[in-house]
Amino acid sequence: MSAATQAFIRERRSQLLDELKTFLRIPSISTLPEHRPDIDRAAGFVADSLRRAGLENVEIIPTAKHPLVYADWLHAPGRPTVLCYGHYDVQPPDPLELWISTPFEPTVRDGNLYARGSADDKGQFYMHIKAVEALRAVHGALPVNLKFLIEGEEEVGGASIARFVAENPARLKADVALVSDTALYADGIPTLCIGLRGLVYTEIEATGPSRDLHSGLYGGAAPNAVFGLIELLSRLKNADGVIQVPSFYDDVEPPAPAERESWERLPFREEDFLEEEVGSACLTGEPGRSVLERVWARPTLEVHGIAGGFTGAGAKTVIPASATAKVSLRLVPRQDPDKVVAAFRQFVAAQTPKGIQTQVRVLSAGPAVMVNPDHPAIRVAAKAFSDTLGQPTVFIRSGGSIPIVGDFATHLGIPTVLMGFGLPDDGLHSPNEKYRVENYYLGIMTIAHFLEEYGESGVA
Amino acid sequence: MSAATQAFIRERRSQLLDELKTFLRIPSISTLPEHRPDIDRAAGFVADSLRRAGLENVEIIPTAKHPLVYADWLHAPGRPTVLCYGHYDVQPPDPLELWISTPFEPTVRDGNLYARGSADDKGQFYMHIKAVEALRAVHGALPVNLKFLIEGEEEVGGASIARFVAENPARLKADVALVSDTALYADGIPTLCIGLRGLVYTEIEATGPSRDLHSGLYGGAAPNAVFGLIELLSRLKNADGVIQVPSFYDDVEPPAPAERESWERLPFREEDFLEEEVGSACLTGEPGRSVLERVWARPTLEVHGIAGGFTGAGAKTVIPASATAKVSLRLVPRQDPDKVVAAFRQFVAAQTPKGIQTQVRVLSAGPAVMVNPDHPAIRVAAKAFSDTLGQPTVFIRSGGSIPIVGDFATHLGIPTVLMGFGLPDDGLHSPNEKYRVENYYLGIMTIAHFLEEYGESGVA
Repeated sequence: MSAATQAFIRERRSQLLDELKTFLRIPSISTLPEHRPDIDRAAGFVADSLRRAGLENVEIIPTAKHPLVYADWLHAPGRPTVLCYGHYDVQPPDPLELWISTPFEPTVRDGNLYARGSADDKGQFYMHIKAVEALRAVHGALPVNLKFLIEGEEEVGGASIARFVAENPARLKADVALVSDTALYADGIPTLCIGLRGLVYTEIEATGPSRDLHSGLYGGAAPNAVFGLIELLSRLKNADGVIQVPSFYDDVEPPAPAERESWERLPFREEDFLEEEVGSACLTGEPGRSVLERVWARPTLEVHGIAGGFTGAGAKTVIPASATAKVSLRLVPRQDPDKVVAAFRQFVAAQTPKGIQTQVRVLSAGPAVMVNPDHPAIRVAAKAFSDTLGQPTVFIRSGGSIPIVGDFATHLGIPTVLMGFGLPDDGLHSPNEKYRVENYYLGIMTIAHFLEEYGESGVA
Repeated sequence: MSAATQAFIRERRSQLLDELKTFLRIPSISTLPEHRPDIDRAAGFVADSLRRAGLENVEIIPTAKHPLVYADWLHAPGRPTVLCYGHYDVQPPDPLELWISTPFEPTVRDGNLYARGSADDKGQFYMHIKAVEALRAVHGALPVNLKFLIEGEEEVGGASIARFVAENPARLKADVALVSDTALYADGIPTLCIGLRGLVYTEIEATGPSRDLHSGLYGGAAPNAVFGLIELLSRLKNADGVIQVPSFYDDVEPPAPAERESWERLPFREEDFLEEEVGSACLTGEPGRSVLERVWARPTLEVHGIAGGFTGAGAKTVIPASATAKVSLRLVPRQDPDKVVAAFRQFVAAQTPKGIQTQVRVLSAGPAVMVNPDHPAIRVAAKAFSDTLGQPTVFIRSGGSIPIVGDFATHLGIPTVLMGFGLPDDGLHSPNEKYRVENYYLGIMTIAHFLEEYGESGVA
């Protein structure tokens, strides 16, 4: 990257950190209505930052829920256009008592910046703005055309941006999207994520008797909604974790041999994964497949929660009238969410036990995404990453889901560079969320470098 | 019964009702610590009532939790001794907003007395005291020897009385116990309950990963505590409701042909039971057995509640670290609770899925009880009941469990006359609990009549 840009960023480290801290002090918790004023303050902060960075047409766009922030700079004719995405909303900080420093007073300890939103995602997408600001200051112009689309609903489903992308493909037209909302494979290893699983998230409600019944007086003759739901859910997977919904695996493809080989070269140790991350008696899942294949390239079904009947202290002898479970399916490339939803609904209906009625509500359904590692933007991003961190870039997948990446693919027809600078132990959604301060600076540099090189590569 | 006793009771109807109302105004909720003063007031009220009725040696006996009230009258040599039991504590009244009149201001509407505790059990055991008071007033003495033991923990497990009975068999020695905490089979039908199911109540806790995990990053390789618990619980019964714990049915005996025939003569309609009481799509349970056999004479297993993972509004993608379920087994005569507990523990351990750890906590374990309908006290009770209500007495079982009846059998070696005057729709433990005012008066008369006849029968 240009020495001037590098020097500009390096000299301003303390100011860059202070600005991010100011942003992190806004408790923009999207799920809590009482924080709506903070959501608006955060959107305003983002808009101001974009203006100061030299972006134009900055607009706070109202939606059915929380506002989007749009901005652009389109004065690099013949150069590619990059669509930068991020989200200014954060998860609630509970349980508060587990935080060492308060969640909305950013605090540096041991080289980490502790605050809710530091890694997810304020600290990461703010790097995009700061990289652009640096490039403008150094060169007086930008190496690529840029659009920014920042949302405030990522932690609550992201419905508004999904709708906006679907309805405004012309306005958002770009060659590639840039998202920093992922982590390095490990500290110091430049990492591009080229695959994300899709997600179908559902809620199943089971009802039995019209009210909770006394289990002494009715036990043996009345259906039990909790047990009915248990019976149904137990049929969804076999003991090896293989999903029993017919035709579910029809479109699943194994990872390419080259990709599989590259995973084998990663510094992955199953014992560490079990002991340091999972912490259970043993790992589980489909036999004969590696852990990385199971979490990155295989579809899964999980029950996230279940509630029904009496769960207080002591004994209460009810036959519960209703019960609910949250069930999701992670999808891999080529699986069609609509087809999966239909097969899932059919299976639930067919397997609902006698005397029980079930209802499936689909809360969201998005496909998996794969990016071709030979795409010019990915190649340039990999080089920029390697240059900054001094190591070869690794290509990984993530078992998680970033629905907006699917929306960009579907509605804009563009791939996404997933260039994140978090670390696996950043504690997203947990107490003591952190972001490594050094990675914040490295991220700004790497993004600036990527934009310079991508612009110069001339590929539009 | 003696015309004088009958007249005495009839003339004092309004006073009898007022006295019960005073008792019902004390919110003696045993599970809520802030009501401890009300528990003490209720115990004091019971002690005073016993004294006024002419009982002697009235004692409020402190326990580890709520006090017992004891009293006796032992001046009928050669006559049998009756041990009267009841409980002065009540269930919490929630949800309050569903009550038509407030739960602790007793209100008569349509011939029913609405109040928490009106049927369960203040209004019922108070009849014993009032019957004794009437007999003393009319005859100057009592037709039998009497002991009263009233507890304040029935709604929270009854541990103190169980211990007291086990430790004081000599003091409580009697020929029969009298309990009014059940209902008529239907309004106007004199009913003696001669069988109760036993109850083993457990809590199963399942743990998987050491903390809630992100289902995208770990789904496919990490065990899920909620799903593990679901798998385990689903194996406890087959689709017909048959319990799969080995040897569980070994000691179960079918009801005698005569008992089965008597059930067939009861005015039971399966359609009404389904539509008016259960309210589900259909009834369930073991094929080839009648509803009454299934709820009265077959053991069952129910999951009363389950909790684990995320159950709030919307979507959260966790792999839960832990989950808990409340599971009980209802037992029939000859099943040994200790044997059942051991087999259950073994089954749970053997069926716990890979990667999951389970722990079974047994909250209570009591056997089923059967009373011989040819016992002299039962024969006299049946006659007294028929005399008062003008119909033949029916002998039924209840699928419920009254642990104290088992304790009386085990530690005192005596049967219990279960002579209750509630109705199936009294709403015990529910909002708008009620007790039919007429049944309160009929109960006092029937109990007085029973004590007179049982004393005269001379069988000690």
